[in-house]
Amino acid sequence: MLPRESELYRLTASEVTNHLRLGDLTVEAYVRSLLSRIEAREPLVKAWAYVDPALIISQAQQLDQVPPHLRGLLHGIPIGVKDVIYTIDMPTKHNSPIHEGSETRLDAAVVTILRKAGALIFGKTATAQFAAIHDGPATRNPHDLTRTPGGSSSGSAAAVADFHIPIALGTQTAGSIVRPAAFCGVYGMKPTWGAVSLEGVKLVSGILDTIGIFARSVEDLQLMADIFQCRDDIIPQSIDIKTSRFGILKTAMWKHAQPATVKSLEAAAQLLESQGASVKEITLPSDFNDLHLWQQQTMYTDIAVTHYSNYLTAKDKLPASLIGHVENGQRHTHSTKLNAMDSIARLRPVIDEILSRYTAVLTPSTTGEAPVGFYTGYPVFNTFWTALHTPVINLPGFGGQEGLPVGLSIVTSRYRDQHLLKVAKELGPLFQSRGGWQSSL
Amino acid sequence: MLPRESELYRLTASEVTNHLRLGDLTVEAYVRSLLSRIEAREPLVKAWAYVDPALIISQAQQLDQVPPHLRGLLHGIPIGVKDVIYTIDMPTKHNSPIHEGSETRLDAAVVTILRKAGALIFGKTATAQFAAIHDGPATRNPHDLTRTPGGSSSGSAAAVADFHIPIALGTQTAGSIVRPAAFCGVYGMKPTWGAVSLEGVKLVSGILDTIGIFARSVEDLQLMADIFQCRDDIIPQSIDIKTSRFGILKTAMWKHAQPATVKSLEAAAQLLESQGASVKEITLPSDFNDLHLWQQQTMYTDIAVTHYSNYLTAKDKLPASLIGHVENGQRHTHSTKLNAMDSIARLRPVIDEILSRYTAVLTPSTTGEAPVGFYTGYPVFNTFWTALHTPVINLPGFGGQEGLPVGLSIVTSRYRDQHLLKVAKELGPLFQSRGGWQSSL
Repeated sequence: MLPRESELYRLTASEVTNHLRLGDLTVEAYVRSLLSRIEAREPLVKAWAYVDPALIISQAQQLDQVPPHLRGLLHGIPIGVKDVIYTIDMPTKHNSPIHEGSETRLDAAVVTILRKAGALIFGKTATAQFAAIHDGPATRNPHDLTRTPGGSSSGSAAAVADFHIPIALGTQTAGSIVRPAAFCGVYGMKPTWGAVSLEGVKLVSGILDTIGIFARSVEDLQLMADIFQCRDDIIPQSIDIKTSRFGILKTAMWKHAQPATVKSLEAAAQLLESQGASVKEITLPSDFNDLHLWQQQTMYTDIAVTHYSNYLTAKDKLPASLIGHVENGQRHTHSTKLNAMDSIARLRPVIDEILSRYTAVLTPSTTGEAPVGFYTGYPVFNTFWTALHTPVINLPGFGGQEGLPVGLSIVTSRYRDQHLLKVAKELGPLFQSRGGWQSSL
Repeated sequence: MLPRESELYRLTASEVTNHLRLGDLTVEAYVRSLLSRIEAREPLVKAWAYVDPALIISQAQQLDQVPPHLRGLLHGIPIGVKDVIYTIDMPTKHNSPIHEGSETRLDAAVVTILRKAGALIFGKTATAQFAAIHDGPATRNPHDLTRTPGGSSSGSAAAVADFHIPIALGTQTAGSIVRPAAFCGVYGMKPTWGAVSLEGVKLVSGILDTIGIFARSVEDLQLMADIFQCRDDIIPQSIDIKTSRFGILKTAMWKHAQPATVKSLEAAAQLLESQGASVKEITLPSDFNDLHLWQQQTMYTDIAVTHYSNYLTAKDKLPASLIGHVENGQRHTHSTKLNAMDSIARLRPVIDEILSRYTAVLTPSTTGEAPVGFYTGYPVFNTFWTALHTPVINLPGFGGQEGLPVGLSIVTSRYRDQHLLKVAKELGPLFQSRGGWQSSL
């Protein structure tokens, strides 16, 4: 059943798709509801770098005129695009004064794919500068406006959590999808590295950068993964929690876990056990202990290369931390960098084998609840999986003592994205109904 | 001494730099000579995708007005840019009808860096479609117009060999710098993967794509490597051939070497020995035997991802081979791809250690002389080094029985680009003076 007109914005993309098919909803009516929500909430949440209501409504009207048999799988679905991903009809500013007034107009490969499927590219979501620094944009956590939504995909996470749009694209080089998804209490999926083209996306580190998805339901993640042709070698089976084996992984970074994270991971393990699953704490070989350090060494020396041209021509417009990476990255020895890159590469098949023993492995998404202020949080539980190239999905459902959401990551081996979605399809609703935290937005 | 006015186009970039400093040459006079050369030769060689003489002359005039103390290290040096690298003031068409009339205007990071150093971005050089197929553009080998200049950086190699410009940029994913440099009898340098930013360059395969340089002297390669901040951990010493140790590496692909390549490699080994160097044939462990296959599996499955958006929206404008890669790449199992990527990654530190035992390793650049026609040649001696991320320099100097140039590659371990340039500085002139092949252009 359709929600009352004033609350259409609460629909997920999959629900919108059903209603559009049934014919009891138009794209225009839906996007007008989203625009009203944005009008009411954006002054507080500040999720957007660019939204043009006239462009959105005109596209919605065009989409409504497409005959049903010519409609794509994402027909009429509004998607927010992180402002480091190029779009031909909107500016792309990377939250940097260097790109103020930029006229670079092209569609990133992902944007082309989404438009072809009938999606409505809704606007550009706020990002930490160049998706490469720890200070966020002005965006606020919609659950508590004093707090960060996480970063660097800050606007994508906040806009989805606050019902501005059902789906948004983000990018992750350290923890920029999973962390903001967790802080904002939504689903966030980082697919296997390399599965989705980076063409037309601002480079941070080519060996780490991954495009991912924010949504409020697993069905919506699934829709996007299918559009992006994420495929497993073996068509995955549905998961039955009762016969599943879950690994609980605290990692060498566990000392950074705050009580909210410690309790949520414990509660999740108990909940799964109570459902009949086998749940076992696992530890990784000591080779994995330096993985966070290696990810950081790789990323920062890569930033020294990818931001060298900005450093040369517009140093006065770069934030201090990027200047530091260029200057320090150039002082790093290459042997440090090669050791980091080669060591990570050596561990990728090792972790694949370990992960293949479990239905999925559960691990923290963040150190705790979203901190107060503009620091987007420590990605220490995310860098492992970015470096190792595995798919990760953040599941919402648990919460901390401050009333904010705490996400948990499920992880599996590379190119088992569809399998991981099957796991999320069972665990997501379970955690959301039994985890104890619910969005009050 | 300055050549007579009508032959200024023969100067190398380093020579031009000296004359501009001395004040007996203007940028305008120099580029007018290049433009005359192009006017005479381009109808035969077809090296260019875009040249705008008015834009070039106006930039030359502006550069001539820059006061000496404000001039960059590349002041007034014309550089050709492969037409898969974006430029803000010229179209970038990737030799594809998909990008005909394209208005995407941005400067790739490398272009920004070159402009900042005072270079004159001269025009766009012809490329095989999307730098991703084996059929070249219309470009001809300037030494024999019935033959390919190699590819995919066809125009960059031909334009430098034919004295249209002193320096050009290319890209290599399999053998697209080293092979055309060898076929055209010029220097070609593929730096260590990751040393130069790929921002603003069309993606083929992020883990393989490398930007590199074509020039007619080692000094010119050096100038560019310095501008791009290629640095070794240890400042390299000059090389004395007499005390050097060279490895001769035929690789598991040696059966593809034609007599021209077999004889050139033998002649080079003898020449080095005659100069007092230690020269030793080396063989790699059998783990390396499948490296070419793994590179191909990685590249083609990556192309399936990077060209998926074109396949969806403009399949009728894609060449059959790219359609095939998208369709076949999607049928490849991910476990094949992961095995290829992980196996290559495992061998990178192994080859670094092996290469570190030698001043440099000499290996073929191509199977033989440039073939007749439009097929750009088999990259079977290049894929190793692209996959392994090591720097490679093609040295001209030898020739085959058909009178065409045969290049040889020198290789060293990752991030020893400056060391490799020191080796090229000694071996390049030696091979050019004693190798038996000279350009008659």
